[in-house]
Amino acid sequence: MVRIGIIGLGYWGPNIVRNFSSTGDARVAAVCDKNPVALKQFAQNNPGIKTCSESREIVTAADIDAVAIVTPVSTHFELAQAALGNGKHVFVEKPFTDSVAHAEALIELAEKKDLVIMVDHTFLFTGAVAKIKEIIDNKELGKMYYYDSTRVNLGLFQHDINVIWDLAPHDFSIMNHVVTDRPVALSACGRAHVSRFEDIAYITVFFTGNLIAHINVNWLSPVKIRSTLIGGEKKMLVWNDTNDDEKLKVYDKGIDVTTKESIYDLLVSYRSGDIWTPKIDKREALKQECSYFTDCVANHKKPSNDGRAGLQVVRQLAACDASLRLNGETVAL
Amino acid sequence: MVRIGIIGLGYWGPNIVRNFSSTGDARVAAVCDKNPVALKQFAQNNPGIKTCSESREIVTAADIDAVAIVTPVSTHFELAQAALGNGKHVFVEKPFTDSVAHAEALIELAEKKDLVIMVDHTFLFTGAVAKIKEIIDNKELGKMYYYDSTRVNLGLFQHDINVIWDLAPHDFSIMNHVVTDRPVALSACGRAHVSRFEDIAYITVFFTGNLIAHINVNWLSPVKIRSTLIGGEKKMLVWNDTNDDEKLKVYDKGIDVTTKESIYDLLVSYRSGDIWTPKIDKREALKQECSYFTDCVANHKKPSNDGRAGLQVVRQLAACDASLRLNGETVAL
Amino acid sequence: MVRIGIIGLGYWGPNIVRNFSSTGDARVAAVCDKNPVALKQFAQNNPGIKTCSESREIVTAADIDAVAIVTPVSTHFELAQAALGNGKHVFVEKPFTDSVAHAEALIELAEKKDLVIMVDHTFLFTGAVAKIKEIIDNKELGKMYYYDSTRVNLGLFQHDINVIWDLAPHDFSIMNHVVTDRPVALSACGRAHVSRFEDIAYITVFFTGNLIAHINVNWLSPVKIRSTLIGGEKKMLVWNDTNDDEKLKVYDKGIDVTTKESIYDLLVSYRSGDIWTPKIDKREALKQECSYFTDCVANHKKPSNDGRAGLQVVRQLAACDASLRLNGETVAL
Amino acid sequence: MVRIGIIGLGYWGPNIVRNFSSTGDARVAAVCDKNPVALKQFAQNNPGIKTCSESREIVTAADIDAVAIVTPVSTHFELAQAALGNGKHVFVEKPFTDSVAHAEALIELAEKKDLVIMVDHTFLFTGAVAKIKEIIDNKELGKMYYYDSTRVNLGLFQHDINVIWDLAPHDFSIMNHVVTDRPVALSACGRAHVSRFEDIAYITVFFTGNLIAHINVNWLSPVKIRSTLIGGEKKMLVWNDTNDDEKLKVYDKGIDVTTKESIYDLLVSYRSGDIWTPKIDKREALKQECSYFTDCVANHKKPSNDGRAGLQVVRQLAACDASLRLNGETVAL
Repeated sequence: MVRIGIIGLGYWGPNIVRNFSSTGDARVAAVCDKNPVALKQFAQNNPGIKTCSESREIVTAADIDAVAIVTPVSTHFELAQAALGNGKHVFVEKPFTDSVAHAEALIELAEKKDLVIMVDHTFLFTGAVAKIKEIIDNKELGKMYYYDSTRVNLGLFQHDINVIWDLAPHDFSIMNHVVTDRPVALSACGRAHVSRFEDIAYITVFFTGNLIAHINVNWLSPVKIRSTLIGGEKKMLVWNDTNDDEKLKVYDKGIDVTTKESIYDLLVSYRSGDIWTPKIDKREALKQECSYFTDCVANHKKPSNDGRAGLQVVRQLAACDASLRLNGETVAL
Repeated sequence: MVRIGIIGLGYWGPNIVRNFSSTGDARVAAVCDKNPVALKQFAQNNPGIKTCSESREIVTAADIDAVAIVTPVSTHFELAQAALGNGKHVFVEKPFTDSVAHAEALIELAEKKDLVIMVDHTFLFTGAVAKIKEIIDNKELGKMYYYDSTRVNLGLFQHDINVIWDLAPHDFSIMNHVVTDRPVALSACGRAHVSRFEDIAYITVFFTGNLIAHINVNWLSPVKIRSTLIGGEKKMLVWNDTNDDEKLKVYDKGIDVTTKESIYDLLVSYRSGDIWTPKIDKREALKQECSYFTDCVANHKKPSNDGRAGLQVVRQLAACDASLRLNGETVAL
Repeated sequence: MVRIGIIGLGYWGPNIVRNFSSTGDARVAAVCDKNPVALKQFAQNNPGIKTCSESREIVTAADIDAVAIVTPVSTHFELAQAALGNGKHVFVEKPFTDSVAHAEALIELAEKKDLVIMVDHTFLFTGAVAKIKEIIDNKELGKMYYYDSTRVNLGLFQHDINVIWDLAPHDFSIMNHVVTDRPVALSACGRAHVSRFEDIAYITVFFTGNLIAHINVNWLSPVKIRSTLIGGEKKMLVWNDTNDDEKLKVYDKGIDVTTKESIYDLLVSYRSGDIWTPKIDKREALKQECSYFTDCVANHKKPSNDGRAGLQVVRQLAACDASLRLNGETVAL
Repeated sequence: MVRIGIIGLGYWGPNIVRNFSSTGDARVAAVCDKNPVALKQFAQNNPGIKTCSESREIVTAADIDAVAIVTPVSTHFELAQAALGNGKHVFVEKPFTDSVAHAEALIELAEKKDLVIMVDHTFLFTGAVAKIKEIIDNKELGKMYYYDSTRVNLGLFQHDINVIWDLAPHDFSIMNHVVTDRPVALSACGRAHVSRFEDIAYITVFFTGNLIAHINVNWLSPVKIRSTLIGGEKKMLVWNDTNDDEKLKVYDKGIDVTTKESIYDLLVSYRSGDIWTPKIDKREALKQECSYFTDCVANHKKPSNDGRAGLQVVRQLAACDASLRLNGETVAL
């Protein structure tokens, strides 16, 4: 039985509590929040779980094996460092940390202490992303041309980070998970309209090969769009996450190019075939992830979404900030 | 009666012929194409119209008042220069020319000769763009935040230009037409996968104020998307050009920000109201434009989509190419 | 404080428990279910609520004011009769009863005892239906032409009723609520494919005037459709309940008819104007209804969705069964 | 070379002219219309085709082999009788005739004279219907449960027929073409709101087995819907004719029923698998049909959409009228 302490009962925290509670080999031992109102309400609805307002009580508790940190990103480093320092495994919200240096320090500490770090990249545990990874791993798309994501809606404004740090971790973590090419540089442009943080941003990512990726994030859109187009030489797919019944469509569509005599003398022909909408596993992603974390802790396994995966995303977010300050100049990764 | 000579019977040329033919005060006097097959087929179906294979015959003909140039962009300058030099008004396909210098030279020549140049920015004559301009001119959106266009499909590859020169003239001409802020710089990233020309590109445009624009063009998408989101302080609109029945939706949706004490202490609240789908005039845009050209020629009027409007677009396209070569570095306009 | 006893913890029961629990002036005093597994699980999650397996304990309890009956329709009459007989107000699932006679008997008993009966026609408490009623009451549609509902999906098969008794109560209760014309007869056709109960049925309802209504219910559809078209002389509306963001659209669209000389010499012209998508209140309907029931009980008010409203629906369902047996012959209401 | 005479240049006639003109082995020899304006305009645009205002000239012309009748249904019988009587093959608009007796008389006459009758059931020549027929013929759906079509929009009012005779011929001809079960009876309900002809109607068709079909036709809908759901024991399909890119979807979805001990003790389980959107041939249906007619005439073949197929539809339309007059009572076919 893995005993979990949870810090943070804000927007996402209750979901973490609920899912660890329903994971067979885990038990929520205690929760912590600085907000007395949230804490009291939680205590009433969950009489069996200890509550406290000081995170120190969680990270030092003898009867806690792992700490879930579900707080603003600016606090991740200090809390995770304290938890690891006290020999606790760590489950931490995305983005992992607010800087590359902080992420590296935590990874080093966890390795020294032989502890698990898992970064909550929930989307990796959805049926849709699992199916996309399967399709790409099976080489069904052929050589990859582009990865193009739009993630916009009238969003909750974050008070300590810009729209990139809020929304793009989803796209970076998914892209890093399913794409095998290595990203080498990126360019980001954005503007702040409502607060001092960018609320709209456009990110382009370059890879070792010819693959190009693009991420459009926007807190000011009247419509909610969650769509990703992935184009390859042989097939293309569209993941529309707001369409519950047809989330994923694979198009047997593409371009056949024949070079005649000279390289500039192309014969381009279009292929247009069937569309296939695979059945997507509808399991709750967070439940899968909590169960995976429990398994990794109990059986000394290294998760795929570990600290290094979290660091890669933080490195990409930091590069976005650097490019933003340079008005879109390309920044190496 | 304005007598029109038309050069080019490729993909778009027949539409130009058909629309000038049905314009009351215009008459198609002659057409020209180097391809004998296309020319012969045209002659059979249109016994009343002269045909020729040499553009010189068109630009020098005594019984022709205006020349429509519907050929690849690399030929626009030479043909337009010859037409203007022979005292003919010019209607020319988008993009106006293949370089800023060429556009400037043609404008100067036309002014010297007191002739009309109209660049075929067809979208400006659609009911949708007319309605968007009306909404923005009426200040219904309030202060503008962003202009975000996606124009992707499995596209016909052009053999002499990249996807930006093919598709982005639509977006630039529309944006220049409806947005009152002045664009000052842009950044463009792209990649070529199938030929030596970029088939995918992402453009970000910066303005004097805080407005930001973005254009996503792609010849390799399995789905056709033609959507533009325009966000303002008071309202936002979505133009979905592939939805015939509900092309335009205006959202009474936005964010109200109240600053408390310090600037970093924001109270953000969301407004969500009705959606309004205005009726769009379904007239054929090209017919309106041909009629407008005829009127400008007959009555010595200066069109709004004149050489200068065409030059502005060419300047933006050339800046995109410059930024592409610099991997997305910002280029001033 | 209204003390509620709830009978039935099946598919819908837990929603009733949750909503009465969160209604300020109500308290769930006890729940009952014959299934020991469901009962035990409920008890664990809700330590503060009494549980029992015999409905008699609920209907006779001294500390219960009102009984919510959330059981199969065949049991409604007996349970409601017992509850009313013991002086309890009754909240009962749709359809009210399995026969007209049973409904009439319960209404009579409730009136004699001065008790409230509310039939759970949840849809009446949605923002969409409230807005439709407002639009029709304001005469915006003009004279009503038709009411056409499609309610199909791959449905849970009921083991004791056909698809009409399962799905059509929604449509009948909504139609009776928003339409002012009086239905006078109906015709129903259907077929059973999977069990002995019809799984597909088509119902046409006739009114005193020229209004016609139609209800298409189907448990065997691969796609979920929940759409209602309401057409009037002046405007028309479409309610698409599966479209969360644009549930309701009002079309300024219609036909203007001018009679020339003879009645058979019509000039028909089409009007096509804007579409208006009103903002819909997103409150949870069942919560509103539970609160309304509590208010009616506490303050001796007669609910609009009372026994008589429930009887009208049962009368329509019974007429459908009669017409089904006559292969679609029209049956008077 | 089959020489075609065409009677009627109204809404559909020009399409018939255009398609026979582009059919290799056919030639449009003459066209006829009573309207001098339409005739004159046609003559100007088609100098090579003879025109006349009297149908007698067409049906008696020595240099015409076949007559296409593209006029209101009330005139079909007289014109087709005259054409057949003069030894001409006949291509006639749907519905074939205005009565069963008229259809039977024409079939007899054509057989006596060994002439071809083809009824213009254009939809049978679409890629979508061809694919549906292929899927059903391959037994992919398994035992068929239902065929449910909705064909509604703000329609052009016909001045001599009701909405059933206008729109339902499409559905009846398609259903007769793809369904192998035999329809034995039908019920129809409708109402007239704008003229004396029904503008809204609901038709239910019964078959020898358990299959049930339904057709919803409406001239007064604010939205255009052209959708057909076909459900079978093994799979189900949805044909959405307004969705150009995904007209047809085949759902690997259904219900598995296991009977335990008694017939009333069912175990129902749901299957939900992939969705398959087959590529649809985008050929113009009418062009295929005109080519097929030409081939049948030239090579003495009997078309599948011959007089008997047309008669079956007329029989179904006439049964609808009979049921309408009986308020939906079932009428045998």
